[in-house]
Amino acid sequence: MIPNWLMKRASLSPEAPALSFEGETLSYAELYDRAMDHAGKLRAAGLHAGSRAALLGGTSAEMAVLIHGCLLAGVEMVLLNVRLTAEEIGYQLGDAAADLLICEDFCIPQTGSANCGALSYSDFSRLPAHPVEPEREWQDDRTLTIMYTSGTTGFPKGVRQTAGNHTASAVSAVLNSGLRDGDAWLHMMPLFHISGFSILARAVLYGTEVRLFRKFDAYLAAEEIGSGRVSGMSAVAVTLERLLTEFERSGRTVPETFRTLLAGGGPVPVNYLERAQRIGLPVLQTYGMTETSSQTATLSAGDALRKIGSAGKPLFFSDIRIEGAAGPGSRGEILIRGPHVTKGYVGRHSGKGALQDGWLHSGDIGYFDEDGFLFVSDRRSDLIISGGENIYPAEIEEVLAAHPAVKEAGVCAMRDEKWGAVPAAFIKTTGPQQLDPEDLEIFCRERLAAYKVPKVFRFIEEMPRNSSNKLMRSRLRELAADENVDRQH
Amino acid sequence: MIPNWLMKRASLSPEAPALSFEGETLSYAELYDRAMDHAGKLRAAGLHAGSRAALLGGTSAEMAVLIHGCLLAGVEMVLLNVRLTAEEIGYQLGDAAADLLICEDFCIPQTGSANCGALSYSDFSRLPAHPVEPEREWQDDRTLTIMYTSGTTGFPKGVRQTAGNHTASAVSAVLNSGLRDGDAWLHMMPLFHISGFSILARAVLYGTEVRLFRKFDAYLAAEEIGSGRVSGMSAVAVTLERLLTEFERSGRTVPETFRTLLAGGGPVPVNYLERAQRIGLPVLQTYGMTETSSQTATLSAGDALRKIGSAGKPLFFSDIRIEGAAGPGSRGEILIRGPHVTKGYVGRHSGKGALQDGWLHSGDIGYFDEDGFLFVSDRRSDLIISGGENIYPAEIEEVLAAHPAVKEAGVCAMRDEKWGAVPAAFIKTTGPQQLDPEDLEIFCRERLAAYKVPKVFRFIEEMPRNSSNKLMRSRLRELAADENVDRQH
Repeated sequence: MIPNWLMKRASLSPEAPALSFEGETLSYAELYDRAMDHAGKLRAAGLHAGSRAALLGGTSAEMAVLIHGCLLAGVEMVLLNVRLTAEEIGYQLGDAAADLLICEDFCIPQTGSANCGALSYSDFSRLPAHPVEPEREWQDDRTLTIMYTSGTTGFPKGVRQTAGNHTASAVSAVLNSGLRDGDAWLHMMPLFHISGFSILARAVLYGTEVRLFRKFDAYLAAEEIGSGRVSGMSAVAVTLERLLTEFERSGRTVPETFRTLLAGGGPVPVNYLERAQRIGLPVLQTYGMTETSSQTATLSAGDALRKIGSAGKPLFFSDIRIEGAAGPGSRGEILIRGPHVTKGYVGRHSGKGALQDGWLHSGDIGYFDEDGFLFVSDRRSDLIISGGENIYPAEIEEVLAAHPAVKEAGVCAMRDEKWGAVPAAFIKTTGPQQLDPEDLEIFCRERLAAYKVPKVFRFIEEMPRNSSNKLMRSRLRELAADENVDRQH
Repeated sequence: MIPNWLMKRASLSPEAPALSFEGETLSYAELYDRAMDHAGKLRAAGLHAGSRAALLGGTSAEMAVLIHGCLLAGVEMVLLNVRLTAEEIGYQLGDAAADLLICEDFCIPQTGSANCGALSYSDFSRLPAHPVEPEREWQDDRTLTIMYTSGTTGFPKGVRQTAGNHTASAVSAVLNSGLRDGDAWLHMMPLFHISGFSILARAVLYGTEVRLFRKFDAYLAAEEIGSGRVSGMSAVAVTLERLLTEFERSGRTVPETFRTLLAGGGPVPVNYLERAQRIGLPVLQTYGMTETSSQTATLSAGDALRKIGSAGKPLFFSDIRIEGAAGPGSRGEILIRGPHVTKGYVGRHSGKGALQDGWLHSGDIGYFDEDGFLFVSDRRSDLIISGGENIYPAEIEEVLAAHPAVKEAGVCAMRDEKWGAVPAAFIKTTGPQQLDPEDLEIFCRERLAAYKVPKVFRFIEEMPRNSSNKLMRSRLRELAADENVDRQH
């Protein structure tokens, strides 16, 4: 049994600061009251315990309160990426069998394909609050959130994250990162990603403050850190780089009270880590994914300097092994087990368990060094990680293949200075006619979130395939590398 | 699934200090190696995973290593109170169906009634270490320890404490007390009590140091605290008082790095709490028992001053309610629920579940104030808490009733300046013959741990009984109060 996080926290430390946003700070008692009001509105909207609400919006106090309102009302959340197209949103709503979509007003144009009721924030906020009895506690297996990840099959998969998953993740994290009176976490991440949601979850379990911002801003981040207002922050490689540049530019110093810059969501160049060392910014690399409800291995502060480039050791309640590894240094697929690992997917993918023999097969390649530190050497070979967003080529290929003039499409990652990687598309057309790359781009933009739209379209005569006719993505990546050289000259 | 604590911790922070005792400090890697050696010796002694070893000894590094050895080997521990008589030990060994008793050499005279094999530490240490595969992980319900508590029925009850119980307790505690690099806990408690065992469990989960001493010593405690070597310490009322006196006498100051003096094991006089405030010693009252694997409610540092006398709020994963209470201030029996609460007893009491409708009935009386803080107003009405040891009158009455010249015996608590309370016995003899109190005392000493032996024996003509013939212990306590006045003049 897990107590309803916010209900328990508001009873334990009602006066502690909970959430700061745009100059206003709510205590845990105030956050509870606002979230209870939202829980009442969710009832008014016809949602009961076990209903599913899809939430679509940016990072804001309103969204954080709505999330806690769902948790209090026992409403399962489908957290939608605000960058998705109407078509993608329609798919996820249908796949998750959402009962209602609640979206920020500016997202209304994206909800055209919604096959369930939809309410804007404005309309939602005008609902009367019905009486509501908060869900006092959760079984371990209670679904709290559903987050879609790009799927290897071309269809995004709805990952079911339970109360037990999120709680175990937060507990493992505190045993690695410590906990002090006055701790506060700088939150400039999307709330719909596990990285951002898990910040809310940890804070309410620990009784610490979240300092929330609409989006990443290097100047404001350096200001929050430099002034000693926060003790931790989450970032991905691209935002870390901008933060480093800001510190280097301004000559600001990092106070000792700032203990953790958690860098995840993909590989972080060692060069960034070295720059962070030079300015005294304690960057701890972490490795995790939607299916592990955030961190599964994290470097600890004590090891940060001597194990640069490592994602640390498996957290206390997390178990990791390298499939087929012969010993230290030997590479293989990273397998993960523990109470933080998803029990499975919803919708189309619900039949297939997420685990094989109790282990989650991450698809990532890594190794342990002789001291037991994890190094993630290759992400799922076909996965494209672009500025912290995961993109599976299959999803883009599926869209391209639907274009009447496209016979075959192959997509792979192409290195990018700013985003780490971007998608590149290789096309074999149906006939000898010319096809304008711009047409394809427009075609994709209508159907895919902008970050998924290939930055390069290249026409080829034959798709590189192996003898069993399987697409050789490694060959595509070589072609993309050549293409990239062209692009930069 | 819970990872084997020490195995996981030694992999996470092998070089961190784990255990200091008599001038030697073991790192987690060293502690693991020694405990694995002990696990091998346990195998050599014929114990396998699921066997039960009873451990009898004082507080020492040897005992702490042996405890971790049992945890690695999967051997369930029956932790025996070193102050028990041979007869009491015989009972507990039999009731728990222990496979082997391992005892400190000086305890050998107490093992006369053992109905299982017995090994002294010396003999144990000379065993060859057999190969042993450590138990890598535990199911939540895996029994780790069995501790006997005085029983209301006259027979001590063997409380079964699982991996889930101890782990949930430690996790709840860290969310209340925080965790910093360099934290160290001063351990001057018996290892066989939950208060002492839980210090080991928390340390290995947190990766912090235990500074272990054979017994409480006010001078050394003040030295450890004053020098900044420790950040926390556990105490009961009687040891807290001696520590306060030492600080007052020496004029030593308490450094800011010392955050928690956890005071439990029974009521702490408010006067002590006020004295602690004056010298800046952060005393946090806690409420817990063997059945809750240590703390279930604890005052937090932020509330210590304004809620003096309270045991705080129910910890994050702990739920407490007052039976039949009408609201704030309304008294009733304290009921407890959560993953830290025992699933039940072993042996004679195994049939009766520990819980009623999912709640542990503590027998203690308390109330919540209007801010949700727990005040424990009366311990189980018949329980005698003497210097942190729990004594049930029924157990002493059972022994006294076995004396040929005793017709009826009634035992109750009598206030005591030093120990808080001591047992007082009221005797109705079988005939008119004179009975020497000294004979009764000797009779008790042979059968009961010294702290359970009544300090006063008083002969009465009739036991005070109510209309349904139930012993009126409240009337006995009045008689004892009179007796006490006599004793002190």
